[in-house]
Amino acid sequence: MSKTDHSVAEIRATLQNWAEAARIFNIPVLLDHYTDDIRAFDAVIQTQFIGKKAYGDHWQACSQFCTGPLVFEISDPKIEASDNVGFCHCLLRCGGTDANGVEKTSWMRMTSCLLKEGGRWRIVHEHFSLPFDMESGKALFDLEP
Amino acid sequence: MSKTDHSVAEIRATLQNWAEAARIFNIPVLLDHYTDDIRAFDAVIQTQFIGKKAYGDHWQACSQFCTGPLVFEISDPKIEASDNVGFCHCLLRCGGTDANGVEKTSWMRMTSCLLKEGGRWRIVHEHFSLPFDMESGKALFDLEP
Repeated sequence: MSKTDHSVAEIRATLQNWAEAARIFNIPVLLDHYTDDIRAFDAVIQTQFIGKKAYGDHWQACSQFCTGPLVFEISDPKIEASDNVGFCHCLLRCGGTDANGVEKTSWMRMTSCLLKEGGRWRIVHEHFSLPFDMESGKALFDLEP
Repeated sequence: MSKTDHSVAEIRATLQNWAEAARIFNIPVLLDHYTDDIRAFDAVIQTQFIGKKAYGDHWQACSQFCTGPLVFEISDPKIEASDNVGFCHCLLRCGGTDANGVEKTSWMRMTSCLLKEGGRWRIVHEHFSLPFDMESGKALFDLEP
C-alpha cells in the first residue's frame, strides 16, 4: 500500500467513526474528530460556525430536533490525500423518522477537509448543503443524486 | 518558503485566476481550471454536476441569468496544502446588479479541493451553498458572515 493509499484508508476509517458518532449524537466523540479551530459550513441557520465550542453547541441543538434514529449514511465518497493533507466529497443520505414511523430523508452534499497532526487525522473544515430552487428560493429536499 | 507555503501561494493564485474568469464568464478559461472528472456541488438546481462538460453547460446556463457585472469576491480564504493535495474554504460575496443599478449580493460559502498534476493545480471538486431556514425551508440570502 503506498503512502497515499494508506492515508486514504485512514481517512475513510476516520469518517466512518465520525458518522457513527453523529448517528447516535455522541457529541464528545464527534467533537474529538474536529480540530480546535474547525470552520464548519452547515446546511442550516447561519453562514459558518468557527471553533469546536460553537460547532459543538450547534450539534447539541440539532440533536434536540431529531426524534427516533438519525439516518446519516455516507454514499459514494471520493477521497484524495497526501501524507498529511486530505479531503473527501460525498453524498449523505440524511434524515429521520416521522411520528408515523415513516423515514424522511434527503440527499445532502458533504465535503470534509482533514489534516494529520500528531499521527491522527482530524477534520479542519466541513461543508454540508442542499441546493435551492432559483425561482422559489426553497431548498430542494426531494432531489435524487 | 517551504514546499507547503509554496503550494499555498500557488493555490491562492490559481483561485484568483479562476475567480477572475468567473466574473466575466470566460467559460474556456474557467473550465481549464477543472480536472476532467470534476464533481461540483453548486448552490442551485441539482445535487451534483459530474465532469467538465456537464459543469461547463451549467456555467453557461448561469451566465444567461446574469445582467450587468457579476460580483464574485473571495473573502477570508483558508488554504492548506501538501506538495500535490490542497484545499481552500472561504466566503464568497456573490451577486449582480438589478435593473435600477443597485448591487444585490449574498454571502455564499465555498470549498475548493485541488490536485497538482503535471506541474499544475486543478480543481477536482468544488462546493457552493447558502444555508436554509429550518422552518420555511428557504435559502438565507441576507445573512452576514
